[in-house]
Amino acid sequence: MESTTEIRVRYAETDAMGIAHHSHFIVWMELGRSDFLRNLGKSYAEWEAEGVRLPVNGVSLTYRAPARYDELVLVRTSLASANRRHLAFSYRIEREGLLLAEGESRHLVAGADGRASVLPDAMLALLGGKLSPGGGSAPDPS
Amino acid sequence: MESTTEIRVRYAETDAMGIAHHSHFIVWMELGRSDFLRNLGKSYAEWEAEGVRLPVNGVSLTYRAPARYDELVLVRTSLASANRRHLAFSYRIEREGLLLAEGESRHLVAGADGRASVLPDAMLALLGGKLSPGGGSAPDPS
Amino acid sequence: MESTTEIRVRYAETDAMGIAHHSHFIVWMELGRSDFLRNLGKSYAEWEAEGVRLPVNGVSLTYRAPARYDELVLVRTSLASANRRHLAFSYRIEREGLLLAEGESRHLVAGADGRASVLPDAMLALLGGKLSPGGGSAPDPS
Amino acid sequence: MESTTEIRVRYAETDAMGIAHHSHFIVWMELGRSDFLRNLGKSYAEWEAEGVRLPVNGVSLTYRAPARYDELVLVRTSLASANRRHLAFSYRIEREGLLLAEGESRHLVAGADGRASVLPDAMLALLGGKLSPGGGSAPDPS
Repeated sequence: MESTTEIRVRYAETDAMGIAHHSHFIVWMELGRSDFLRNLGKSYAEWEAEGVRLPVNGVSLTYRAPARYDELVLVRTSLASANRRHLAFSYRIEREGLLLAEGESRHLVAGADGRASVLPDAMLALLGGKLSPGGGSAPDPS
Repeated sequence: MESTTEIRVRYAETDAMGIAHHSHFIVWMELGRSDFLRNLGKSYAEWEAEGVRLPVNGVSLTYRAPARYDELVLVRTSLASANRRHLAFSYRIEREGLLLAEGESRHLVAGADGRASVLPDAMLALLGGKLSPGGGSAPDPS
Repeated sequence: MESTTEIRVRYAETDAMGIAHHSHFIVWMELGRSDFLRNLGKSYAEWEAEGVRLPVNGVSLTYRAPARYDELVLVRTSLASANRRHLAFSYRIEREGLLLAEGESRHLVAGADGRASVLPDAMLALLGGKLSPGGGSAPDPS
Repeated sequence: MESTTEIRVRYAETDAMGIAHHSHFIVWMELGRSDFLRNLGKSYAEWEAEGVRLPVNGVSLTYRAPARYDELVLVRTSLASANRRHLAFSYRIEREGLLLAEGESRHLVAGADGRASVLPDAMLALLGGKLSPGGGSAPDPS
């Protein structure tokens, strides 16, 4: 499954180079991830209400071309791997078919107290069928 | 009492006009307020730990001149009014003596649950002696 | 004319009080203003391409209720006043009909070099017919 | 050479998990890089004035522990590689000796027009002697 999120570049997101500041791509990845979970049938707000947090424990991002104020960019989000303790998402950020950036985020599963936890079975099942073709159910180290 | 906070303009704070985006002045006011309370002897982090929140219920800001990347700006923060239920701070943001912006923020007193509350007497006493000459102990409507 | 802009609260916009940080409302006002101009028939990106800038020279905002992660908020934007040298917009930010905040922004007209300038007649004409009922064509001091 | 930058976590940088949002670490890396160049004897603002830009073309970051409001974090910045067309910096973000995050940023050399360019010899010489022990003068592909 791939989820798509359309984002219009905000003036507040531009910098003195006249382009969207690179740190905002990290936020756009988060918006893509948020929509991915919503499209799966349970929003991250609902996950939180059930006591599950997915704190980010790693990001990587390669920039290919800039985005400018008022442009519409598209974030394509896929689930790269999932097990009871870790999730990873991959992202392609495009504008009119042109690749602007590619990235990945890695997440721990945590409880409402922020401590490491495990994903409830129902959530793992929900995610399990949605791994991207390139992805795999990462071996669960626990 | 006036508290001063030095801030170096971040590249991430600039926008496509080549100047610090106006929304960041609101954050700089918050940094000034944070230092004002720290200088008073109890940081806002300590207020929070004791169950007191000061949510913002109003801001106003007039911009006189822009700030640019890497410039050092100075936030001068004063307590404009204080009673058991409301606080107000005023700010002058300068660069090398040039006034860049003047603003004010108004705050409710709330508890850890976010609901309206009253300021503990010790905190009100701490603030009471620090009103700016132009300010006054606003009549407490409660 | 009133323009409406729907915004979903980003996780990155929340703060440790669990609500959208007040500084982001300033950015949401900018999104509302951007859509207002787009709906008028000429986006701010097009204004910029024609050498017109509208730097903010004042904002004021009163907060009535918080916004939380993933909520949909609506920004209602109106033109409060317009002349060759100044514009002002007013904003109501709502969630499901509940008023969250009311604000105003004031703008100078500037050229591509950032210096004070005057609005081209065609743009003033475009704006002139769209003043909100409560607004007026502010007397032009120049 | 290693440069250190002290940053106090802003309230505006926290999120609803009660910790600094992960995207701000990217901005903190930028502050570290900015100080690294300043300590080298020529600030990035001066590089820009001489027509050199260092747009980011990649970032990666691994998070080890969270940062909270008002905490003082330290960014340790090193130059990982440098040639006429590319630079890379590495970062360790700590709080009281505890490692919070490790990251890297990769940069293109560009001119004032944003197009790929080459680093002036004087700047390359300035950087050349400051590579971190682990780094190397990356072979220049051009």
